[in-house]
Amino acid sequence: MAQEKTKKNFGVWFREILDKAEIIDYRFPVKGFGCWMPYGFKIRKWTISLLRQLLDETGHEEVLFPSLIPETLLEKESSHIKGFENEVFWATKGGRKRLEVKLALRPTSETVMTPMINLWVRSHTGLPKKVYQIGSIYRYETKATTPLIRVREVTTFKEAFTFHASLEDADNQVKEAIEVYKNFFDKLCIPYMLSERPEFDKFPGALYTMAFDTVFPDGKSLQIGTVHNLGQSFAKAFDATFETIDGKQEFFYQTSYGISERAIAALIAIHGDSHGLILPPVVAPIQVIVVPITYKDVAEEVIVKCKKITETLRTAGFRVEIDLRNDLTPGSKYYEWEMRGVPIRVELGPRDLKANVVTIVRRDTLERFNKNESELISTITDLLCDIEGSLRKKAWGQFEKHLHTTLSIDEAKKLLNNKAGIVTLPWCGKSDCGLKIEEQTNGKTLGAPKETQAQGNCPICGSKATNIIRLARSY
Amino acid sequence: MAQEKTKKNFGVWFREILDKAEIIDYRFPVKGFGCWMPYGFKIRKWTISLLRQLLDETGHEEVLFPSLIPETLLEKESSHIKGFENEVFWATKGGRKRLEVKLALRPTSETVMTPMINLWVRSHTGLPKKVYQIGSIYRYETKATTPLIRVREVTTFKEAFTFHASLEDADNQVKEAIEVYKNFFDKLCIPYMLSERPEFDKFPGALYTMAFDTVFPDGKSLQIGTVHNLGQSFAKAFDATFETIDGKQEFFYQTSYGISERAIAALIAIHGDSHGLILPPVVAPIQVIVVPITYKDVAEEVIVKCKKITETLRTAGFRVEIDLRNDLTPGSKYYEWEMRGVPIRVELGPRDLKANVVTIVRRDTLERFNKNESELISTITDLLCDIEGSLRKKAWGQFEKHLHTTLSIDEAKKLLNNKAGIVTLPWCGKSDCGLKIEEQTNGKTLGAPKETQAQGNCPICGSKATNIIRLARSY
Repeated sequence: MAQEKTKKNFGVWFREILDKAEIIDYRFPVKGFGCWMPYGFKIRKWTISLLRQLLDETGHEEVLFPSLIPETLLEKESSHIKGFENEVFWATKGGRKRLEVKLALRPTSETVMTPMINLWVRSHTGLPKKVYQIGSIYRYETKATTPLIRVREVTTFKEAFTFHASLEDADNQVKEAIEVYKNFFDKLCIPYMLSERPEFDKFPGALYTMAFDTVFPDGKSLQIGTVHNLGQSFAKAFDATFETIDGKQEFFYQTSYGISERAIAALIAIHGDSHGLILPPVVAPIQVIVVPITYKDVAEEVIVKCKKITETLRTAGFRVEIDLRNDLTPGSKYYEWEMRGVPIRVELGPRDLKANVVTIVRRDTLERFNKNESELISTITDLLCDIEGSLRKKAWGQFEKHLHTTLSIDEAKKLLNNKAGIVTLPWCGKSDCGLKIEEQTNGKTLGAPKETQAQGNCPICGSKATNIIRLARSY
Repeated sequence: MAQEKTKKNFGVWFREILDKAEIIDYRFPVKGFGCWMPYGFKIRKWTISLLRQLLDETGHEEVLFPSLIPETLLEKESSHIKGFENEVFWATKGGRKRLEVKLALRPTSETVMTPMINLWVRSHTGLPKKVYQIGSIYRYETKATTPLIRVREVTTFKEAFTFHASLEDADNQVKEAIEVYKNFFDKLCIPYMLSERPEFDKFPGALYTMAFDTVFPDGKSLQIGTVHNLGQSFAKAFDATFETIDGKQEFFYQTSYGISERAIAALIAIHGDSHGLILPPVVAPIQVIVVPITYKDVAEEVIVKCKKITETLRTAGFRVEIDLRNDLTPGSKYYEWEMRGVPIRVELGPRDLKANVVTIVRRDTLERFNKNESELISTITDLLCDIEGSLRKKAWGQFEKHLHTTLSIDEAKKLLNNKAGIVTLPWCGKSDCGLKIEEQTNGKTLGAPKETQAQGNCPICGSKATNIIRLARSY
């Protein structure tokens, strides 16, 4: 890596690591469209695999719906179309013909899920119904685009949709979704803060929106997940009803929640260092790389032993590769695998062979130590677990340094100008005051926790604060 | 199932099974767009998983490229754009603005892969480069659409792209791809015939196209896979070159090959019977369903034993579920799981419990027999293998009944009018005569094998046949 990872240099470092580690390539001739490269695709695959597991074990069923939405459906829920109309790509032609009904490239799928699931579930006995899909969504971004963060085709969007018999069930589903997302981010060692988005920034069509934000090394916040209680607004717009236990027709209560490739951006940005990527073991395409150190006379023996170690670890269930390239020095192999973030490197040379030990190097701390070969499996097992724990702890430590509380607008403005992270002020809870705080601090409102104890007074109207308000410079 | 599966009734049967077994739902308000339902999605998942495994173990790397292609790229290779221009969906608007460059919803990806891979590989040392991606492709079909077969969004398209230093390497890659596809169809127990498509029906931009066709129960043929040697046509159009071993610049030689959700249509169509689906074990979401048969006094014991059996089989690596619903009779459970094509059903009631046996029913033959519980794992292992073998044998038997050879145009026409399957005629090899044969027999030319011994004379020009020509009514 040519670039140091510092607060100031973060953006340059981030683009370099995406390129050098072969994550995703944005040299596509249209702005905001990226090409996942083989190594990046594998990180994406393991990230999706973790998310699928968490959703499957909580009773979500995977489906796949069309990526085009006819205008007639998209516009049914009026606040929804208002929220999206400026950023929708429209397919208007088929061959040389003008399409009778314009087709939107899906920006999100509430307007196709609601009418279709209504065909599948007609009675309370089929509720709750929880489905999810993983695919592309499209946003016609006019602002500057940022790799994996603000793009026109989000190729990795997991959106879940649930249908319930009561508002209470929908509220409880929001809680379950939040737990699933917490587990997901915890395994990725990504720290987060959960806020209810203010009225003026909730999902178009939702009753309320809960959002996960993290903080990047440059002090800017990034929204990495959202959970919406949709109430009955989509059900009413689509006349989507079920038969209650009393034989009446009632509109469904719905929720929806999403996670995108921003989770991958976050794990790269937060854990990486000036040597390159540091991958949490759960998503590392290679968890252990075995590097033989050969000299002329003992090359054969060393390689045989390294292959045996590789096989042993693979059988034990780890994702292991052996680097047998003979046109590279061990040093350049170390450089490459460190840059690619492989959590553990196992080296073995003639001296190790003689002493019946292996040399182990952990990527996160670059510590290096010997272990008896007989302890290999238990060492790797413990070490992967330890690396995960220590990445998580380190990331939360950095995150907390980015959290600030103040009573003054001026102080908040200063902190936000310095991109110091997330700043908390007391707040009366009124939208008007929120918008004024946003304007005067030059920050973006992340919102407030669902329940909290506030101290002090609203810095705008001076009345007693009933809540807090969180602000940040955000992506 | 209300519908019998007969030659005449096949279309109605096919639509009913997609609906009843909850595979895919086409009640979407735009023609040719389907919604994968949870059970269908799982069959799709296992089908894709098999294909991924076969591609990964032959050195293909998975990537994911944008689904939109700017017009400026799509039109670079002139025969390619000519072949696709009538069936491309175009995105022309972003928000309320007209896009500067129209974006095609990808019909296939040669025109994005060629320029991008050219950025990744600059020298012969990086060759061969073999990548693939799985995603949606779009075709603006104006003809009638058919579920999973002729649709506007093909949500499951695996396309592979390879780059080589010589034409010979590209030819060899075609052979490798054919082997991969044969293995894939063999595991799905789908019979096939491999033909070189005639000049007038090859992939737009290719040197030649090899295609896999199967025959449906109604006697119509279906193209289920294609492999193209692209030569240097795309490389030349995109000025995509590599440095040879001598330090010169040369255009890449390329191949591309694709498999779609038609493979899923084929396995449903070919194996199913009047009771519903019959799934090849490799893609069955549930390979073994355990159904407890309870009576009041021994319910508890039976359920405990069934749970134990389920656990034992799951630990042994099978995909097993237990049906514990207590609002359904065993009979209606049998009906449902037979309809969903689960390869093996294990029943256990009080009498079995006493005798320490289980009752096993195989879906393909509906045979029913007892086995000692201690032999359970070996029985299931053998049976799944046997079911696969016997599905394959039966399918190839039906396929061969659909193959006909004749010397006469009239006879060929009669066979094709009766939808008798694939009809072979002698052929001189000239495009002109091929087109006339197609016209006079009212069939579609599938093409010819790469190498064959022909007998007789071309029925059009009368000259000695150097090849054969295969025709069918096709989807």
